Amino acid sequence: MDERELSADETQEKIRAAIAGVEEVILATNGSHGHPNVRTMCLACGNGIDTMWFVTSLESSKIIELIKSSKAAVYIRASGDAEVRLWGTVAILDDHDSRRYVWKDYMKDSFPGGQEDPNMRVLRFDVISGLFAKDGKSGIFTK
Amino acid sequence: MDERELSADETQEKIRAAIAGVEEVILATNGSHGHPNVRTMCLACGNGIDTMWFVTSLESSKIIELIKSSKAAVYIRASGDAEVRLWGTVAILDDHDSRRYVWKDYMKDSFPGGQEDPNMRVLRFDVISGLFAKDGKSGIFTK
Repeated sequence: MDERELSADETQEKIRAAIAGVEEVILATNGSHGHPNVRTMCLACGNGIDTMWFVTSLESSKIIELIKSSKAAVYIRASGDAEVRLWGTVAILDDHDSRRYVWKDYMKDSFPGGQEDPNMRVLRFDVISGLFAKDGKSGIFTK
Repeated sequence: MDERELSADETQEKIRAAIAGVEEVILATNGSHGHPNVRTMCLACGNGIDTMWFVTSLESSKIIELIKSSKAAVYIRASGDAEVRLWGTVAILDDHDSRRYVWKDYMKDSFPGGQEDPNMRVLRFDVISGLFAKDGKSGIFTK
């Protein structure tokens, strides 16, 4: 394969461009019985190559999975068949500032109690490393 | 949430319908340093709710991941926002019959040596359990 390596800086630049405007990503966690678990998640706000924010219900199985292991991956199939993979850890947050930071009105459909809904938790994905691949060119970066 | 549970039989039926005609899926493995790893994979042939077949290069990082842990997940975002998750194990196959079973001519782009290309391996994902979710209705099945 005619694969050309991107530098770490080029990789980060490509990832920034690829994820701009993306609203949904795949979030993979360490699931039950040693299997990974995967689902589509809407991005909340302040999303970038350093940090991505999500909200979830306390009833979701991913809460237990993330308590057991905070190690996760985000996968994005961007336009033009570019693939982005980010690895990092997920913090489960319950504080007022985090809730206010991510809150958007449409979330009321899932959390009728608003930003202080006791059933809502904020997930902050902190990126450790990442990979970009497109057209046989790929690169990685580590923070 | 107004969630209604599907029976195991209904779940399998819905999954069969949802994955018919699907050509690409998300394959999640247990990756490096305790993080899951995720990529898009083209389905080869004979794919269904029991078994899914893929081909991969011996140079792919997923080979090492699957040698370390055969536990994997397949995720499919089907039409109408239906979500399918399947959990199972992946066997790495190198025998003539498996190679012949999955081979399609377009694979020559990646494996110029044809179905006996020494760089090609066949992956057989054997399903253990699954989940279907759509419009607030969901169900699981276990074999």
